[in-house]
Amino acid sequence: MNKRLIFITNDDGYRAGGLAALIEMMQPYGDIVVVAPSEGQSGMSSALTVKTPVRLRKIKEETGLSIYACSGTPVDCVKLAMSHIFTRKPDLLVSGINHGTNTSISVIYSGTMGAAAEGTLYEIPSIGFSLCNHSHNADFTACIPYGRMIIEQFLKQPFDKRTFLNVNIPNLPYNEIKGIKFCRQTRGAWVEEFEKRTDPHGFDYYWMTGNFVNHEEEAEDTDENAVLEGYVAIVPHQLDMTDYRELERLKQTWVVGGE
Amino acid sequence: MNKRLIFITNDDGYRAGGLAALIEMMQPYGDIVVVAPSEGQSGMSSALTVKTPVRLRKIKEETGLSIYACSGTPVDCVKLAMSHIFTRKPDLLVSGINHGTNTSISVIYSGTMGAAAEGTLYEIPSIGFSLCNHSHNADFTACIPYGRMIIEQFLKQPFDKRTFLNVNIPNLPYNEIKGIKFCRQTRGAWVEEFEKRTDPHGFDYYWMTGNFVNHEEEAEDTDENAVLEGYVAIVPHQLDMTDYRELERLKQTWVVGGE
Repeated sequence: MNKRLIFITNDDGYRAGGLAALIEMMQPYGDIVVVAPSEGQSGMSSALTVKTPVRLRKIKEETGLSIYACSGTPVDCVKLAMSHIFTRKPDLLVSGINHGTNTSISVIYSGTMGAAAEGTLYEIPSIGFSLCNHSHNADFTACIPYGRMIIEQFLKQPFDKRTFLNVNIPNLPYNEIKGIKFCRQTRGAWVEEFEKRTDPHGFDYYWMTGNFVNHEEEAEDTDENAVLEGYVAIVPHQLDMTDYRELERLKQTWVVGGE
Repeated sequence: MNKRLIFITNDDGYRAGGLAALIEMMQPYGDIVVVAPSEGQSGMSSALTVKTPVRLRKIKEETGLSIYACSGTPVDCVKLAMSHIFTRKPDLLVSGINHGTNTSISVIYSGTMGAAAEGTLYEIPSIGFSLCNHSHNADFTACIPYGRMIIEQFLKQPFDKRTFLNVNIPNLPYNEIKGIKFCRQTRGAWVEEFEKRTDPHGFDYYWMTGNFVNHEEEAEDTDENAVLEGYVAIVPHQLDMTDYRELERLKQTWVVGGE
């Protein structure tokens, strides 16, 4: 029987500290193939590279661990790996560990989670991990044991093949994390988002910035609040974005041509 | 009372034929402000520009119609417009008309739909329109009367503020379109996705390509099949991607630390 095959990717690039931590976390579980962006691709969501070609470079190959860098987005990494690197389907895709929170609506902007969603489309069980610390030198120590608890549970009882997990880990030492909570995606949004500046030539330009606004500050079952309270938050996500309740209501109330 | 304020954006860029068609479609309904990408941004999903600044350029200003070009992604267009152009909240955001289909899983890659999702986060009722024809010279004639039927219904009976609509229009003459159908998002995926080539210097590179695989070819209530049968397909989408059924199951079956 083949050893378990583990596909690792991220959106912070193949040199990120969070990727090194994820490799360490996953090494007990099988052979690892990393295909990660050449450079940081934060905020790239499920973006595809369609207008330019993509390059792939082998960085490292040793027993049980290969690392490739791809010039594209996180989703490109997944698609390219599935079409040109893997000769059999990986048993698990893990993405991250992201430098920064991906709770609430951040899931739709996150390249880390875009890659996890893409893994699901290839019917690979996929988990995105994020540490709630944006800094380059974030300390991922506590992520490893908590990540392994989640992997162990997955190996005993896989989640549904249409589901992928979004795991957010608070930026706390191991002994200050209170445990793991299953949560739903928090309702919230980012606001006041572009800062205007003037360049040395007198032209305006704008930097993305902004603050997260939690629309459910009192909720007890949301990922954002779980992390704020010191819990590791797990949200199972799905790719069917149909609003079924509204679908039924519109069918009954709108008068449009056709059936 | 102010005239209705309509925000138009897209992912094909401010010069696209689909954008001109959308302006024509919306002109009876109010004052239009277009903030669209400077260049094509297809497949950009909900990507954000975080590593470089973004530029904004006024292209046109006439009574009832202003057009701006933004150097960023479709979501950047929405965020930048909301922070630096609009002084009151638009009454409606329409995105498109996309040159190409956005049924099924394409909704997660689409910049057109990324912009519509972003509008919803600003609590603007948002609709993405796509014509099932990728070509630069696609004929958008039939989109206009069908789009207006949908706008008229929206004006009478707005949809839920957490919902946005994904409208796909078959590439047919007006009199061959069978009507409008409310649908759910088709299960499907894109496969075989990178074509390998060798550059003149002997190095490999990869072009994104691929074929859509419909996982529900027999379904009668999906957007993909509705369009194939000649209907305009409307899918109401939501931003909460929580898989609630799997959430309950995992809560009951997984043994993890914490509560």
